[in-house]
Amino acid sequence: MADILIVGSGLVGSVLSIYLARAGYRTLVFDRSVDYRRLNEVSDRSINLTLCERGLQALDRIGMAEEVLEISVPVRGRVIHAPDGATCFQPYGNNGEAIYSVSRNQLNRLLLNRASTFANIELHFQEECVGLDLATTSLRVKDLVGGAESTFQSPHIFAADGAFSAVRYFLQRRTGFNYSQTYSAQAYKELSMPATATGDWPLEPNALHIWPRGHHMLIAFPNADRTFTCSLHMPCEGRGSHALLRSGKDVLRLFRNEFPDAVDLMPRLVDDYLRRPQTAMVTIRCSPWTIGEKVIFIGDAAHAIYPSYGQGANAGFEDCRILMECLERHGHSWKPALAEYQALRKVNTDAIADLSDRHFIELRDLVGDQRFLLRKEVERRINKLYPDKFKDLYSMVTFTTMPYADAMKVDQRQKMLVDQVLGSDDFEQLWRHNKIDAAIHQIMRAQELEPVSG
Amino acid sequence: MADILIVGSGLVGSVLSIYLARAGYRTLVFDRSVDYRRLNEVSDRSINLTLCERGLQALDRIGMAEEVLEISVPVRGRVIHAPDGATCFQPYGNNGEAIYSVSRNQLNRLLLNRASTFANIELHFQEECVGLDLATTSLRVKDLVGGAESTFQSPHIFAADGAFSAVRYFLQRRTGFNYSQTYSAQAYKELSMPATATGDWPLEPNALHIWPRGHHMLIAFPNADRTFTCSLHMPCEGRGSHALLRSGKDVLRLFRNEFPDAVDLMPRLVDDYLRRPQTAMVTIRCSPWTIGEKVIFIGDAAHAIYPSYGQGANAGFEDCRILMECLERHGHSWKPALAEYQALRKVNTDAIADLSDRHFIELRDLVGDQRFLLRKEVERRINKLYPDKFKDLYSMVTFTTMPYADAMKVDQRQKMLVDQVLGSDDFEQLWRHNKIDAAIHQIMRAQELEPVSG
Repeated sequence: MADILIVGSGLVGSVLSIYLARAGYRTLVFDRSVDYRRLNEVSDRSINLTLCERGLQALDRIGMAEEVLEISVPVRGRVIHAPDGATCFQPYGNNGEAIYSVSRNQLNRLLLNRASTFANIELHFQEECVGLDLATTSLRVKDLVGGAESTFQSPHIFAADGAFSAVRYFLQRRTGFNYSQTYSAQAYKELSMPATATGDWPLEPNALHIWPRGHHMLIAFPNADRTFTCSLHMPCEGRGSHALLRSGKDVLRLFRNEFPDAVDLMPRLVDDYLRRPQTAMVTIRCSPWTIGEKVIFIGDAAHAIYPSYGQGANAGFEDCRILMECLERHGHSWKPALAEYQALRKVNTDAIADLSDRHFIELRDLVGDQRFLLRKEVERRINKLYPDKFKDLYSMVTFTTMPYADAMKVDQRQKMLVDQVLGSDDFEQLWRHNKIDAAIHQIMRAQELEPVSG
Repeated sequence: MADILIVGSGLVGSVLSIYLARAGYRTLVFDRSVDYRRLNEVSDRSINLTLCERGLQALDRIGMAEEVLEISVPVRGRVIHAPDGATCFQPYGNNGEAIYSVSRNQLNRLLLNRASTFANIELHFQEECVGLDLATTSLRVKDLVGGAESTFQSPHIFAADGAFSAVRYFLQRRTGFNYSQTYSAQAYKELSMPATATGDWPLEPNALHIWPRGHHMLIAFPNADRTFTCSLHMPCEGRGSHALLRSGKDVLRLFRNEFPDAVDLMPRLVDDYLRRPQTAMVTIRCSPWTIGEKVIFIGDAAHAIYPSYGQGANAGFEDCRILMECLERHGHSWKPALAEYQALRKVNTDAIADLSDRHFIELRDLVGDQRFLLRKEVERRINKLYPDKFKDLYSMVTFTTMPYADAMKVDQRQKMLVDQVLGSDDFEQLWRHNKIDAAIHQIMRAQELEPVSG
């Protein structure tokens, strides 16, 4: 009998298996998919993702951060593309802080390669979880190649099987299990932007590129192979929606009107748009996250969020780190460790779900807004003067590991400070002549703020 | 091919079938249960329920209100039982308004008997919906006696199969389908209170009896056979919870301490408590309520709510009435009729879900609270003086058919008026000497209120 069964060998399932194997647990991992290492492309998930401090720190604990950084592209800020083609760069931080764009597939391969070096991890691909028996803590698993079904038993089963978790689906009719799935009215399509004919980056590489247009938006992420992956966000239905883009002509017209500086860089645009699936954005919440010590939800299976804040994989990796810290703190006594895991994580993943929803609106509607940009600049200035006492929300979420809910609370307090600075007498004059610092000092001194830890 | 398939022959399924049959549709109804008319007791649902204006009006449209009233007991207010045995009666309205307590089983039998008089309704019992194919709008139905499966096709399938709807479960993984289930931390057990040895009512019959005790509460509803059905509400787990009532001794101790004037009227208390299932309270929301014109959610399958406000069946019957009004308004053109059905109902069933949650707290915690009781008396007084312009929330929900969301809005405005009256100079003096009317007139005259319609 294995010590632990994990359903799902995606990013979180792989990282979790390594954490557990290093702690000495004998772990079986099941995935209904073909071994990702044999695939060229995972078709229904986003092509790349960004890692930040949280994800990297969780990878570092299993000695994998460096390896992952090697296949990543640092992204130090956003380039905003205006409708007239003008661009403007907003750095993420005052000190060259970066997030790291990495291919989901490459990252998953790296993780699975590492997992398979452990003698106490057994990876089972093309084996689907088709049933769950709580009384015996056993999984019914179907071999999708041979068709045979087998039963596996173990004291603990992890559901690391993503937003549409099969394990969670089996448990959903359980009395007392709270659950919600909430879809955005918007969905996105991923589109490719190849390297130039001379093999160069088509856009400034160390940046996330955004074409914010209110109800719709284009984003481009750099890949290590000098290509970009773009995602086009639009409403699913109604005015200006995906539903109305029926032909290549419709797609080209939209891009020529709205993203004129991108269209020439996207030779496969029409084919990509018409051929690739439309990806929905969904927020999933459930509670409790554990059924006794028998079933434990982790990653997207516990808390799927919009991709807008780039926190999905980071939050899932952080789940693994914090779970292991709880196990260690309680001498691997699972009952108190799991109670603490849920207590520490649930409130924070609820917070990042809310923040991701808000951030999507911000990217789409505000990033191109002059007042919003000014606000960001003021935040950066206050942070420059008080680096310990003032961190903007994006920085706290992205460049620290402070709990998401705490970051949200600090942000609420800080918003009032920024409002005060913006409301200073003669703000515009002072700002234009780089004389705002005195006002900032006065406001900050009146606060007696604690340093923002994290 | 039937015109319409209905899954569920419970209260809403039966009423819906009659509405549709009267409009000329050929309707097939499936239920996995045995024909309710052959059962003595529906074991996992509450034993009785209360009908109010909404439910009765919907029954009246299919000519059934009178028949139903004949098997019901009018309930004109609440009797609050204090811990020391003192009681106090709070009428629901100024004019003898009543709600009607009726046995769920008897009501369902009456409805099924009526449904079976229609040549265009076919009732299939012990036939379970085991699959749904949207492409062909067909249901896979399994005969639970013989074991055979058959497929039924029709342009419209109604999910009237309750809070744990099988139809909804099949559709839940559909992209864009929003869904939530939220359980209360409290659950209840139903307990019986028989007629006295001389065949009399054990308590004042035309009232709902409440023993509010903060974290727990006992409620008793009259039945037409001179018995009462009680429900004991307590937390599922933790301090003062069901989980701690393990023996007959525990149950008796609780009742002797908390409900001393009820315990002697409940000779089967211990046996009932230990034998009967614990019923969870769950709020279920979903959207959209229709998948094209193919699948339509109605009743608890669309919007399960806590039973505290007594609105579950009433809201479900109202769904049927409003659906039919939409169909009539649009000349039985289903597309616009269903769009209107959802637009008219969803916002209102969301409102009654919130109100039912709030009302549960109110019953449990506030009904025994002096300030709350005073507030209710002030509301009754304002209503007495301005019957057209001021109706308390309970009355709007219970004695009118104004949309729930409108009632909620009117209530928010009215709360401020009550606050003003309670905040009058010398309120206590004025109230004690029956001289509050002048203050009420002054406050109301300043308002220029429209009559509350409904």
